[in-house]
Amino acid sequence: MYNDDKLREKCAIFGTFGASSEAARLAYYSLWSMQHRGQESSGIATSDGKKLYRHADFGLVANVYKEEHLQVLPGHMAIGHNRYSTSGGRDAIYNQPLMGNHNGFSFGHNGNLPKTDKLERFLSKHNVPIDELNDSGMMAAAIEINIRKGMSLFDAVSKAYPLFEGVFSSVAMDKDSLVVFRDQHGIRPLSIGKLESGYVVASETCALETIGAEFVRDVKPGEVALIDERGITSKQIKEPKLKLDIFEFVYFARPDSILLGKSVNTVRENFGRQLAKECKLDVDVIIPVPDSSVPASIGFSKESGIPIEIGLVKNRYINRTFIRPTAELRKRDLKMKLNPVIDSLKGKKVGLVDDSIVRGTTVQQVVSMLRSSGATEVHLMITSPPVKFPDFYGINTPRQSDLIAARMNEKEIAEFVDADSLHFLSYEGMVKATGLSEEQFCTSCFTGIYPIPIGKNMDSISYEGGRPVNRAKRHDSAIHRSEASI
Amino acid sequence: MYNDDKLREKCAIFGTFGASSEAARLAYYSLWSMQHRGQESSGIATSDGKKLYRHADFGLVANVYKEEHLQVLPGHMAIGHNRYSTSGGRDAIYNQPLMGNHNGFSFGHNGNLPKTDKLERFLSKHNVPIDELNDSGMMAAAIEINIRKGMSLFDAVSKAYPLFEGVFSSVAMDKDSLVVFRDQHGIRPLSIGKLESGYVVASETCALETIGAEFVRDVKPGEVALIDERGITSKQIKEPKLKLDIFEFVYFARPDSILLGKSVNTVRENFGRQLAKECKLDVDVIIPVPDSSVPASIGFSKESGIPIEIGLVKNRYINRTFIRPTAELRKRDLKMKLNPVIDSLKGKKVGLVDDSIVRGTTVQQVVSMLRSSGATEVHLMITSPPVKFPDFYGINTPRQSDLIAARMNEKEIAEFVDADSLHFLSYEGMVKATGLSEEQFCTSCFTGIYPIPIGKNMDSISYEGGRPVNRAKRHDSAIHRSEASI
Amino acid sequence: MYNDDKLREKCAIFGTFGASSEAARLAYYSLWSMQHRGQESSGIATSDGKKLYRHADFGLVANVYKEEHLQVLPGHMAIGHNRYSTSGGRDAIYNQPLMGNHNGFSFGHNGNLPKTDKLERFLSKHNVPIDELNDSGMMAAAIEINIRKGMSLFDAVSKAYPLFEGVFSSVAMDKDSLVVFRDQHGIRPLSIGKLESGYVVASETCALETIGAEFVRDVKPGEVALIDERGITSKQIKEPKLKLDIFEFVYFARPDSILLGKSVNTVRENFGRQLAKECKLDVDVIIPVPDSSVPASIGFSKESGIPIEIGLVKNRYINRTFIRPTAELRKRDLKMKLNPVIDSLKGKKVGLVDDSIVRGTTVQQVVSMLRSSGATEVHLMITSPPVKFPDFYGINTPRQSDLIAARMNEKEIAEFVDADSLHFLSYEGMVKATGLSEEQFCTSCFTGIYPIPIGKNMDSISYEGGRPVNRAKRHDSAIHRSEASI
Amino acid sequence: MYNDDKLREKCAIFGTFGASSEAARLAYYSLWSMQHRGQESSGIATSDGKKLYRHADFGLVANVYKEEHLQVLPGHMAIGHNRYSTSGGRDAIYNQPLMGNHNGFSFGHNGNLPKTDKLERFLSKHNVPIDELNDSGMMAAAIEINIRKGMSLFDAVSKAYPLFEGVFSSVAMDKDSLVVFRDQHGIRPLSIGKLESGYVVASETCALETIGAEFVRDVKPGEVALIDERGITSKQIKEPKLKLDIFEFVYFARPDSILLGKSVNTVRENFGRQLAKECKLDVDVIIPVPDSSVPASIGFSKESGIPIEIGLVKNRYINRTFIRPTAELRKRDLKMKLNPVIDSLKGKKVGLVDDSIVRGTTVQQVVSMLRSSGATEVHLMITSPPVKFPDFYGINTPRQSDLIAARMNEKEIAEFVDADSLHFLSYEGMVKATGLSEEQFCTSCFTGIYPIPIGKNMDSISYEGGRPVNRAKRHDSAIHRSEASI
Repeated sequence: MYNDDKLREKCAIFGTFGASSEAARLAYYSLWSMQHRGQESSGIATSDGKKLYRHADFGLVANVYKEEHLQVLPGHMAIGHNRYSTSGGRDAIYNQPLMGNHNGFSFGHNGNLPKTDKLERFLSKHNVPIDELNDSGMMAAAIEINIRKGMSLFDAVSKAYPLFEGVFSSVAMDKDSLVVFRDQHGIRPLSIGKLESGYVVASETCALETIGAEFVRDVKPGEVALIDERGITSKQIKEPKLKLDIFEFVYFARPDSILLGKSVNTVRENFGRQLAKECKLDVDVIIPVPDSSVPASIGFSKESGIPIEIGLVKNRYINRTFIRPTAELRKRDLKMKLNPVIDSLKGKKVGLVDDSIVRGTTVQQVVSMLRSSGATEVHLMITSPPVKFPDFYGINTPRQSDLIAARMNEKEIAEFVDADSLHFLSYEGMVKATGLSEEQFCTSCFTGIYPIPIGKNMDSISYEGGRPVNRAKRHDSAIHRSEASI
Repeated sequence: MYNDDKLREKCAIFGTFGASSEAARLAYYSLWSMQHRGQESSGIATSDGKKLYRHADFGLVANVYKEEHLQVLPGHMAIGHNRYSTSGGRDAIYNQPLMGNHNGFSFGHNGNLPKTDKLERFLSKHNVPIDELNDSGMMAAAIEINIRKGMSLFDAVSKAYPLFEGVFSSVAMDKDSLVVFRDQHGIRPLSIGKLESGYVVASETCALETIGAEFVRDVKPGEVALIDERGITSKQIKEPKLKLDIFEFVYFARPDSILLGKSVNTVRENFGRQLAKECKLDVDVIIPVPDSSVPASIGFSKESGIPIEIGLVKNRYINRTFIRPTAELRKRDLKMKLNPVIDSLKGKKVGLVDDSIVRGTTVQQVVSMLRSSGATEVHLMITSPPVKFPDFYGINTPRQSDLIAARMNEKEIAEFVDADSLHFLSYEGMVKATGLSEEQFCTSCFTGIYPIPIGKNMDSISYEGGRPVNRAKRHDSAIHRSEASI
Repeated sequence: MYNDDKLREKCAIFGTFGASSEAARLAYYSLWSMQHRGQESSGIATSDGKKLYRHADFGLVANVYKEEHLQVLPGHMAIGHNRYSTSGGRDAIYNQPLMGNHNGFSFGHNGNLPKTDKLERFLSKHNVPIDELNDSGMMAAAIEINIRKGMSLFDAVSKAYPLFEGVFSSVAMDKDSLVVFRDQHGIRPLSIGKLESGYVVASETCALETIGAEFVRDVKPGEVALIDERGITSKQIKEPKLKLDIFEFVYFARPDSILLGKSVNTVRENFGRQLAKECKLDVDVIIPVPDSSVPASIGFSKESGIPIEIGLVKNRYINRTFIRPTAELRKRDLKMKLNPVIDSLKGKKVGLVDDSIVRGTTVQQVVSMLRSSGATEVHLMITSPPVKFPDFYGINTPRQSDLIAARMNEKEIAEFVDADSLHFLSYEGMVKATGLSEEQFCTSCFTGIYPIPIGKNMDSISYEGGRPVNRAKRHDSAIHRSEASI
Repeated sequence: MYNDDKLREKCAIFGTFGASSEAARLAYYSLWSMQHRGQESSGIATSDGKKLYRHADFGLVANVYKEEHLQVLPGHMAIGHNRYSTSGGRDAIYNQPLMGNHNGFSFGHNGNLPKTDKLERFLSKHNVPIDELNDSGMMAAAIEINIRKGMSLFDAVSKAYPLFEGVFSSVAMDKDSLVVFRDQHGIRPLSIGKLESGYVVASETCALETIGAEFVRDVKPGEVALIDERGITSKQIKEPKLKLDIFEFVYFARPDSILLGKSVNTVRENFGRQLAKECKLDVDVIIPVPDSSVPASIGFSKESGIPIEIGLVKNRYINRTFIRPTAELRKRDLKMKLNPVIDSLKGKKVGLVDDSIVRGTTVQQVVSMLRSSGATEVHLMITSPPVKFPDFYGINTPRQSDLIAARMNEKEIAEFVDADSLHFLSYEGMVKATGLSEEQFCTSCFTGIYPIPIGKNMDSISYEGGRPVNRAKRHDSAIHRSEASI
């Protein structure tokens, strides 16, 4: 249970120009506030207008940087990056920000390029070997080639932009300019803030808040923006077709962040309220799975009038070096991640609220814990629809066959997790609760509609079987449209 | 604000006999679940019936132990310790468990001995130098002397017990016996659980829950208990006069722990309910200071009917190596520990719930943050009475002059923290909310009544001034009684 | 005295193709045997025919690599590098082998480019920033540019070769070819050996010996050689004008290495014999300064018939972390690097043999130690001529003004070091003792004749004063010739 | 070959009182100069007259101590220790100096107690468990017991002295006195020096020399000496029966040390001269095995008139982390420890000089290397007699069955190592070369005569077979005498 059955965001990015003479420290506090978006490695590159500096390593922000590191990261410009890698490939050469052109520029990327054919052809034409390059590395290499042709960083990025097929919220920096850009659909968030006489950009607004910056606007889908001493210069490379990943609202973003003008906390409370409207439960108490399900639980409690209780306490302080239980101990009733609060559970009919189900293994253990703590009934309420499709846009999801909702219907899942009943928030309810229109979202995990072509990955996806896909017909046209637009 | 203005528990202890052939692993998971009681260092000693083994180091549990360490801690017996040291004295020789008599026995201590005169005389008589020994070291040395006189560990502890003037919940172990003992007033908790055919003891029941042990009973105040292959053998050295530190309910203990048969979470919810009864507020929303004030806030919300909202989000991932902001950055509006959720605050009259006030500096910053996030009024509700006296029983408190409630009345504190109003839970209300009688508690932080003599420390305490001490007359008799009893 | 007053070689390089399926291990043992040529950092890059791998860090070979590092350096090809940096610039980005073209090729360099004008112009033309590039970095960047133009590594190096003005014995590798090359004068050594069905190259033949390879031939001055599965393909880019640094014989090379067909040990013994011929001494005993002067001392002893004794013992085990004596201790008679053997010294007239004098500070302390150990006379014999000029070809020398022989004549130096007499090996004697012709050597440290233009460095050199330069006229023509040749 | 086939000294000790206000630094430089006597761990304890301080860790002196460690080791008194442990038991609790009586005193020991019956009985009587105590730990525990009885450190050591059956050169310290003592036979060296107004003691005089102290005298066998502010107070506990381990001259001691008034370097040169007298060789050149055999080789060369050459060069820079060759590489002609100097060997009849043979495996590889380097004949000259018996007095020897000279005669050994001839220095010649009388030495490794009873170890020793023991009859009486004396 210590191994969280959660989808994981791959990255957080940050950039600043002129907001502080200690840009590295702004990056430090910002990256730390976005630690939830990437916990495997962290890096900062800075510029003092003359040359670039960099420090990156594996670990949490608070471990990666010591005072001595910040002191050798001088300058009024910085970009930063937290990373959560997908697969085994734990190799320092992938830690970001990447450096290019012999430390002449630096690059950070949040997202994923499911197709890299064009990019690979471009690199090969310029005799860059692609064997050790992941998607971020290829993007940096393409920009570098343009720089070597004599382009400014702004031009180099703009010129390379059409080669990037997929999802990217990115920052790039040379010694005197910061360039930020986002894919045409804006699937990952990226916001601009103002601080003193300069600017900051960050994946989430909680970072702006943390360092005292004022929110200005989001980087527009399809936009490349140059931030330098003359301010912001913007170029719209592609027509914006906003498709923010709705999972940012469901689980990824911090509750104190604001996405598309909406408070994440409020939207989550609305998810709870909406679910309470869709599903009338006869339970004594609402129990949130901490921490992420607390806002939705409050919403559910308010709407339904059923009291909320703290019924589960989270064990914190787990890190990479945490030792897994041995076989002998696993047989025992070890409670690694959550402990029950007996008083809140004993003899009660419990409404357990969680934000999503991926594999179903964690919630299965939670239900079992509630029952052995004396809960007489456990009704599981999920404040999002079933996750039936993997993500290819920068989230670490298991294969489709490991997604429990791709294999089972609600009844089967309820049996699997041993819940007395199971209720998902409806797709329409979820969208409605955001206060935004469906068109503004990428909902691929729920619908299988991939707004950006995912290339050969498409072969691994199944839309068949007893599990009819929501709005599958729209999917086809979506694919059609998005392919046409590139 | 990153430097938490909280009282800190000094230690967690653990012991086991016969509950697992991998006793070190039980200790590991138990100490990890009690990480909140001591975060500076951790140590485990084990015995395989033939000799003792030990590993201890500075850091969190998840950092101190690697698999290789657990593998060289064999045996079916273990004691363990998490430590939070009081002052600068960060020296490995103070890390516990201590080893004595040439690794013939091991000792762990949660508590504090405010007077050590008797103990020092005993040690000096036996030519043990006391220059480098803290209170725990002196206890171990006294036990060692008795062992060398030929006593069993059980007898050695029992015989030394009267030398220990102060607060101690302790574990001691030699190669084939575990001895646990607690001071006459039981100021720090210590519970016994059953697991398989053996026993475990732990400072809090959350540790028993974590490893799947069943709660049996508390170690009695004044009791010395031997746990070995014959089971539990108990000796009542002093008449029990229970005085559990009421602050365990207020703040220290984990909400999923049970103290004196009461759920900590439920008692905290009752604190909130009771405060709502005592104080009718006209606010739009209840905002808890996370994480510790959530249960009381839920109670307040339920009792008052005022809705609860998530208005503050905690930045986690802070550790020892976290870099403090520079002077330049401190001038900015940096939000180190808490970030506001604007939606929950803007344009609202806020009831802010916190569990206690020590120096008042943290809550001052929180109120300021709420106001700049748009709260129109901020009413501060503290779910415990004013902390007017320092602790000498194992808690890390500042000097009395640094306790804001020792210097200011409610109105002055409200002004200092810039709250529109400030309400403390009444002393009587706090006690009532526990469902237990006042006699069962040490309430020295609130009342200045010290059930165990604190020796020369008494000179540093003031009971005068405009701040009349609650029940000061009872204090005198308490001191009288407790001194007589030793 | 712990801070060795010695000239320091800057680097050792190594390369192999096809000699072992564990090429990284060959590199490891080879670099370790050439530890004396670079002790600050070490690095190995390998290729398995598909992609490149690299590990490098600060420290000695035995510290830099752990088994786990070698295991992630697969392949039958490797290059390696030991580094001794010149000045403060201790920055990991300068550790070699360097990686270029997005890990598409790797590069290691022993030598120094005193002029980089051409190279800088070439890089700037291709928009490569040179601010953070040292001479090695610029060489790698130029090769990379050619690779990106579509050239093979062999062609890319050959094409870039004319841009390299200075001293270089270098190795470069891409995924399936190893390219080794050496400047027109071959100032630093580089030898090729055969091992199994493959090849190895190394700065010194002691590395070939260590891994059991058979010496084949030296890389020729002006040659670029491709080593791949077809064997060795060679191109003579510039006409060879051999000028091996004679200091390799004097001090740098290991005694078991062979340079230009001559045993370093034998040549050193000859230096001693020759000095004995030039200078008839009336002393009781010959005392070598360990370890480097032992061979020459043996030669002196044999030629003169004066017995050799161990009179000085070296304190080993000094490393980077060694703690310097405090001011108080420095006043004492601390013996940090060498201890005297009283029996060998007391009451004796001593002939002290050292290989060279740079600043004169170390030998001054040694003479003082011999006297306080009872030596009645100390005659200092240096088995090389006076070092009057700094090096610009890859050796770490102090400024000319710090070279004692640039400021003082023999008599003055003898007084400075408190020797009864001082004798340098004559320049002609030194050359004669090598058994080779003067034309084959770079002798700039002794003569000020720089066979390769040193650019603006020339302004810092003085040929005037009481210290007439040996063969100064030849110097002019040498400069003339070498400049013309580029 | 990297795994040195050498006997290893177990320890170096050091002590000082009043010689410097920075006693820890004196200890540091002294221990560093005695690094050859113990390379596994190092420790220093100091006293400032008020309390004791200590730092110890695994590693070489230059690695164990950082400036920060020395700064928290204040005071004018110190003891220090380098350790080389015998067997697997690599556990920090055995690192010395040991601390006793709750950091009230500290203890360091060079030597070994082959019998501990008396000591164990004493400790058990005082209820000290002996399971985790090695011989040094038991000595410390016995002293501690006496201190707790109220004795001064001087008296506590003197009173415990008769319990110590075996070999010990030891230092002990409490907050204001230093006590040094040596077993009745003085098998390990221990010398006193004067420095400023205070004293230092060290295992070898090279340490006195290194820190500028003047040799005063050896600690006498059987003496306990108190060094404090009143100077030296001495007590002769047992009648001195000097039996210095002759192996100190053969191999252990540094050549610049002085033992019993004799220069180690000179004695080794005499070993070589004596062997040259005993054995007329027809060889072209004398080749020493570096470094230890150089003095004897010089002696041999002088006496025989056969020239000495550097024929073997040592690879330095090996440390604990050095990576062993894989199976594949071991098949190659890897030269890990020594490289040949071909010029000195090719076509020559070689006289190879080594100081001793233990297992014979190293010299076997050396002979093979000489032959493949072109030596036409290899005659092996060992400047000590055959090692036929293991040591029990503080040296790390293999079991008797692993000593090649205990299993084979000279001819068989010559065949085993593939030498054309093999010559050991005669026992009488060795003794004569020291200039001292046989009675002053422990020669157990050569003769099997153990001056101090070795208890049950005696059962593992064989005196039979084709290898008659030198002076076996004297052996019996020696045992008789020494047993009687205790």
